[in-house]
Amino acid sequence: MRGLFITLEGGDGAGKSTQIRNIESFFDKKGLVVVHTREPGGTAISEKLRDILLDAKNLEMNAVTEMLIYAAARAQHVREFVRPALEEGKIVICDRFVDSSIAYQAYGRDLGDMVAEVNSYAIDGLMPDITFWMDIDPKEGKERVSKMGDFDRLEMEKLDFHYKVRGGYQALAEQNPERIKRIDASKAVDEISRDIEIYLEELCRRKGL
Amino acid sequence: MRGLFITLEGGDGAGKSTQIRNIESFFDKKGLVVVHTREPGGTAISEKLRDILLDAKNLEMNAVTEMLIYAAARAQHVREFVRPALEEGKIVICDRFVDSSIAYQAYGRDLGDMVAEVNSYAIDGLMPDITFWMDIDPKEGKERVSKMGDFDRLEMEKLDFHYKVRGGYQALAEQNPERIKRIDASKAVDEISRDIEIYLEELCRRKGL
Repeated sequence: MRGLFITLEGGDGAGKSTQIRNIESFFDKKGLVVVHTREPGGTAISEKLRDILLDAKNLEMNAVTEMLIYAAARAQHVREFVRPALEEGKIVICDRFVDSSIAYQAYGRDLGDMVAEVNSYAIDGLMPDITFWMDIDPKEGKERVSKMGDFDRLEMEKLDFHYKVRGGYQALAEQNPERIKRIDASKAVDEISRDIEIYLEELCRRKGL
Repeated sequence: MRGLFITLEGGDGAGKSTQIRNIESFFDKKGLVVVHTREPGGTAISEKLRDILLDAKNLEMNAVTEMLIYAAARAQHVREFVRPALEEGKIVICDRFVDSSIAYQAYGRDLGDMVAEVNSYAIDGLMPDITFWMDIDPKEGKERVSKMGDFDRLEMEKLDFHYKVRGGYQALAEQNPERIKRIDASKAVDEISRDIEIYLEELCRRKGL
């Protein structure tokens, strides 16, 4: 039996990590084998690529280079980790996947259609069974992360970028209503967890788990 | 004035390094500014990617991952080094470029059309003015490099791969007769140098150099 592939998406400060733990314990209680992983990363090669991405951030790295490195890390992650785990029947929970590339690079960095095209080779047809888009106003997300007050010009520019990213997620959610579930991440943690569990219960019924 | 972009292609043992020095001195004598570079590599980010490619060789790296990392290194090299140098009017000599990806990955690794598609985003329209394909029988090239005698099963498999790569170069040369010049790399070094210089003289006349 093929396992389940669950991804979490959204900006910083949306509470993805908390919900990953929550989803993990949801499946633990059912006695199912759960693994969690992240992108970029999840394999030795992909983590090395992640280091380059994080090292070079905001420096001389070109947006197309960045997009291709993310895709390379994903290609390895899918083939070496995610697909084999699913074939063993495991529940795979992944912090970010291909939707992040579309939102951040196609929309945020204005790279357009090339991002989906390149990533179609990276994912080789593997898509999540369900994706939780943890949606929060970028300004609120930023405040949660940094606890800072006013925004200077540079911060405002970054914020502009995050509004474009959010627009990307919005478009993806509209194009994939069956797969992508928008979660209102401005709610209290307990409420968010309950919203997600309702979708998970329904998914389990559908898959006979 | 835009400079000239010259690339060298071919398998190991074909004598690319010697000819790069020869081409460099050809343009030096004309008083033109020459820089040489290599792929994968040529910028700080691209060299880091090169390290990952060389580290992981023959291990767990998937062919699609490998292809995407080569493309990422190229995207950075084109934008950060090659194009700016050409815009300053320099002669850029590059050891391997996009033809290597087509020959080794599309043909050698059987990845097909995705390689050209992904690389079209990496090179952003930049193609060499002239490409010297240093062609040599893979068995002869291997013997030159390793000075070894008989081939074992694994060596023969590798040789098979290099025959597929050569087939890729052959196809590229047929599709791009104006740009790609096949050089018989089994000849003596002096003869090879002369063959290349004839093409360079003609190119210089055409470009008014």
